[in-house]
Amino acid sequence: MNAKEILRTHINKVVDLTDEQFDYFFSLFKPQSFKKGETLIREGDEVDQEYFVLDGCLKTFYTNDSMKMHILQFATRMWWASDYNALYNDEKASFSVDCVADAHTLCLYSEDREKACREIHEIEHFLRWRSNRGYVGLQKRILSLLNNNARSRYEELMMQHPELYHLVPKQLIAAYLGVSRETLSRLYQS
Amino acid sequence: MNAKEILRTHINKVVDLTDEQFDYFFSLFKPQSFKKGETLIREGDEVDQEYFVLDGCLKTFYTNDSMKMHILQFATRMWWASDYNALYNDEKASFSVDCVADAHTLCLYSEDREKACREIHEIEHFLRWRSNRGYVGLQKRILSLLNNNARSRYEELMMQHPELYHLVPKQLIAAYLGVSRETLSRLYQS
Repeated sequence: MNAKEILRTHINKVVDLTDEQFDYFFSLFKPQSFKKGETLIREGDEVDQEYFVLDGCLKTFYTNDSMKMHILQFATRMWWASDYNALYNDEKASFSVDCVADAHTLCLYSEDREKACREIHEIEHFLRWRSNRGYVGLQKRILSLLNNNARSRYEELMMQHPELYHLVPKQLIAAYLGVSRETLSRLYQS
Repeated sequence: MNAKEILRTHINKVVDLTDEQFDYFFSLFKPQSFKKGETLIREGDEVDQEYFVLDGCLKTFYTNDSMKMHILQFATRMWWASDYNALYNDEKASFSVDCVADAHTLCLYSEDREKACREIHEIEHFLRWRSNRGYVGLQKRILSLLNNNARSRYEELMMQHPELYHLVPKQLIAAYLGVSRETLSRLYQS
């Protein structure tokens, strides 16, 4: 699938746009590619863009005062990444986003997103659905953090993102789960 | 403020509805009152409603196999409560919602919500904003769970919901923070 087909497949799950509507929406996205290790958003940045992932992998993360990294989310094909607090509330980024595996993305700026939402009701509907889905995903992650042990959290992640097993270094999986590299090794082996 | 004024204040933060549009939207909500201890949604229920809180307090929670309760969220005035995974994905509830302090709410059914979104673009826009805001709130909670100690989590909760200090029994605050009642007592004293 090319970029246009991937985005259309994603949107078609929710709304039927006419070809003309879709072409217009697609024209607002800017293709951007990143190499492993590149930074897309740095803590403290102003943020007015989000990324729709076509392939590869991004991660959204936070590094605390002791330089310990917490990973909020991985984004692979058909996932979105940004610092959404910064994006929606006009605050400086508190998370960073970087590239975990060489990635092609479509970048959408806030101004264009809001314009498309105003002009085409179906696009607003699609983006409400996307936000609802994200909200539910985060609720599940909170419950998992509160209640599940490392093994369950690992299994959940692998169900949601099986592609990560080969795509992502083990220490990043550990940083997502909130466990040490040693604990994770035991999970892999068993 | 009466129910209508509270809802209108909430919506006006984001969109200007005409009186006619607002009256129509308001007419879709059903007033429902609950006494402390009453259950609104029980784990395993089918869920097709959400609650906009006018006053009092609801909580969304999960009880694990060892009967330990984890509180996902409190909802006080102008907050919403439901099991959103169940509501949006047509699954059985995995959370419960009950009443922590006598509450007046406005109940909105999915069918009515979607109807209003289709008919009035501004309402869809408002609900996208609401979902975005919720998404950002949950991201902050995840970061807090991963990174902050009990004291910071407690202070965050009290900043977000100062009214909880008098409204909610201490053991519920502890269940939200994921700490023991004893740890919480130390936080209160210091």
